[in-house]
Amino acid sequence: MPDSKSSIHFFNPDTMGKPLAAYSNVARVRASEFLFIAGQIGTDADGKAPPDFEAQCALVFDNIGAALRSQGAGFANIISFTSYLVHSQDIPKFARYRAREFPRLFPGGYPPNTLLIIDRLVREDLLVEVAAVAAL
Amino acid sequence: MPDSKSSIHFFNPDTMGKPLAAYSNVARVRASEFLFIAGQIGTDADGKAPPDFEAQCALVFDNIGAALRSQGAGFANIISFTSYLVHSQDIPKFARYRAREFPRLFPGGYPPNTLLIIDRLVREDLLVEVAAVAAL
Amino acid sequence: MPDSKSSIHFFNPDTMGKPLAAYSNVARVRASEFLFIAGQIGTDADGKAPPDFEAQCALVFDNIGAALRSQGAGFANIISFTSYLVHSQDIPKFARYRAREFPRLFPGGYPPNTLLIIDRLVREDLLVEVAAVAAL
Repeated sequence: MPDSKSSIHFFNPDTMGKPLAAYSNVARVRASEFLFIAGQIGTDADGKAPPDFEAQCALVFDNIGAALRSQGAGFANIISFTSYLVHSQDIPKFARYRAREFPRLFPGGYPPNTLLIIDRLVREDLLVEVAAVAAL
Repeated sequence: MPDSKSSIHFFNPDTMGKPLAAYSNVARVRASEFLFIAGQIGTDADGKAPPDFEAQCALVFDNIGAALRSQGAGFANIISFTSYLVHSQDIPKFARYRAREFPRLFPGGYPPNTLLIIDRLVREDLLVEVAAVAAL
Repeated sequence: MPDSKSSIHFFNPDTMGKPLAAYSNVARVRASEFLFIAGQIGTDADGKAPPDFEAQCALVFDNIGAALRSQGAGFANIISFTSYLVHSQDIPKFARYRAREFPRLFPGGYPPNTLLIIDRLVREDLLVEVAAVAAL
């Protein structure tokens, strides 16, 4: 959770198109301390990635949660996501995953996200990677 | 426009290669308040994307402008762009678009940009997406 | 090097998977001044890119170093990298390059990195591009 020195607000101005999924168009952030989190992948503690897209999603957000908790922070501190998928067929699965899980993870509003379909991630078995910035 | 508490300066050091288009190599920013803007796409108020690349560019920057204005800011507050194109054939069109429009949008200098050609955006009809960070 | 007003710390929490290469999972940064550096490519002063991947890597990090030095900073100020490769065959070469060079460039620890394989960069002869954020 943001400490008393930072403030994070999410906006979806009427003058912009509606977000296509569980994200906000704008985050406004007042903070002097930030976390930059390397792109997280869907691997477990042994480095293994399940073949299922949704199972990888769960591990990605578990890993981001662990990064946040390691610094005394939580999902409410996230100010920006960039999400990379390898297969365009996974776009609706990713939207559904977030529609289901994000209301619980982000009760105060959804951070901005940029969704990109790219060629490949660092390992061929990886289907999704999410990089994040947080403010403390 | 940046308020009196922030300062934004753009640099193209002689020790680096010249920018290949309308961007600067370095932004130096002193600020305590930031906007993170989700990647903006070339859709109109009804969510429709024109088939023409340049028309999508105009809508992308209109949307970014709307995001900035919603927070009392403007293009002078932009400190970083990341631009994603789907077709490499659009690279020269994107450079021409910016060469024509950016002198008006950015009279004080061009923010850094990273240009990437990727597989696909969230919808198959989208040709360009631009994510931005701004300082207030 | 960070000035006395900023602090930068890198973390690899035990609760997360081990980094797959020379990066950290989390950077924690207290700062009021930042550098946003446009994606740097492997070109020399004449804009020429050597055909060799590793030679392009060396030029990319030379260019990032020049950007940092132009503002009185150094590699110790880097808080985030995003690295884009065009060919997945270059992933092990990029890991080896960093394993060899980063201990010298980053004696205080490795900044977070997100590695992505994309279709193409701004010019067809470019094999690698790295965008960076630094704190002063």
